[in-house]
Amino acid sequence: MASGETRRTGRRPGSSGTREAIAAAAREQFATVGFDRATIRSIALRAGVDPALVMHFYGNKRQLFVSVLDLPVNLGRQLPAVLEGDRASVGARLADFVAGVLGDPATVERVEAMVRAAASEPRAAEVLRELITTHMMTPIAENLDMDDAALRANLVGSTVAGMVMARRIIGVEPLASLETEDLAAVLAPVLQHYLVGPLVGPLVEK
Amino acid sequence: MASGETRRTGRRPGSSGTREAIAAAAREQFATVGFDRATIRSIALRAGVDPALVMHFYGNKRQLFVSVLDLPVNLGRQLPAVLEGDRASVGARLADFVAGVLGDPATVERVEAMVRAAASEPRAAEVLRELITTHMMTPIAENLDMDDAALRANLVGSTVAGMVMARRIIGVEPLASLETEDLAAVLAPVLQHYLVGPLVGPLVEK
Repeated sequence: MASGETRRTGRRPGSSGTREAIAAAAREQFATVGFDRATIRSIALRAGVDPALVMHFYGNKRQLFVSVLDLPVNLGRQLPAVLEGDRASVGARLADFVAGVLGDPATVERVEAMVRAAASEPRAAEVLRELITTHMMTPIAENLDMDDAALRANLVGSTVAGMVMARRIIGVEPLASLETEDLAAVLAPVLQHYLVGPLVGPLVEK
Repeated sequence: MASGETRRTGRRPGSSGTREAIAAAAREQFATVGFDRATIRSIALRAGVDPALVMHFYGNKRQLFVSVLDLPVNLGRQLPAVLEGDRASVGARLADFVAGVLGDPATVERVEAMVRAAASEPRAAEVLRELITTHMMTPIAENLDMDDAALRANLVGSTVAGMVMARRIIGVEPLASLETEDLAAVLAPVLQHYLVGPLVGPLVEK
């Protein structure tokens, strides 16, 4: 929607419900057929609305994709609170947070949709890289206050992506069926290591 | 090719070169457009051969996919030698092996193709899960000789998949550009932990 547009009637009744129905349909389509094959038409059909309404709310497919991928933005906002505090338990706090995200069906479905879209379509990967870098990597790196903070943030992201691949996309057992609290327990020492441990080799100057 | 087939002429001259050209074209197609959208026709076109020749060598698309995914089989064969020996340095040996695979352009391109295919197509993910479980997870689990060996093998696989996602598919820096030996150094303590360390929480009975 152009910001300069003059609107007499304000938000129509039910428009936020429609908007969310379109977003849900878009997430489902991006997850199942990928960014490239999902179309405004297929998303509109699934949401039960006219394609013109999808364009009205979201402009085009790329903007729709960024919009429904508000997940990195939303999760990124929560990271500072997770990371601040006692360094000795920061890995456990982040592990609880990550396992909570991966263990919540609605949220992990959206994470999975992002991963599938990125794997199937370079343009989707590019959009996701920008969002993740800005809203997740940067907050982690800034909160770490360490020389190699950017690499540490990458390693945390790599761990999360690996869990999505192993649990949701390839589906290897017993990891795929691990309960949230067990997953958090397994992740805690590794995330602690990546966040504040000595990353061995020439990368760490300590 | 049916094993009972009677052949008078034996292998035709050049057939192994043609076979490899088809396999290379198939890998490229599975990597760029995914398992679902790759066709026998598009693969034949890219290899410069008749589609009938692709069918002759490989039967159908699924068999072609399994065939070009000989990577898990080949890498799996090397795992016992990597894992046997001193437990104190097993993580470092596996890290060298994994970083070597991820750092070799030709090999990592094939790993990436597998991940992209799995993410874009459930049937490809199913084939890959079978291959990985049989040829990589099981050798790791058997060589570990620990109660939770299957989970440990999953965690190693998750780490590798996460690296492919972060370095090749999403492409986050500085991790994506990390040199092979630096990657091995970063991976070593984590793989050591996953292979023989105490996996904290209720999963480990020690």
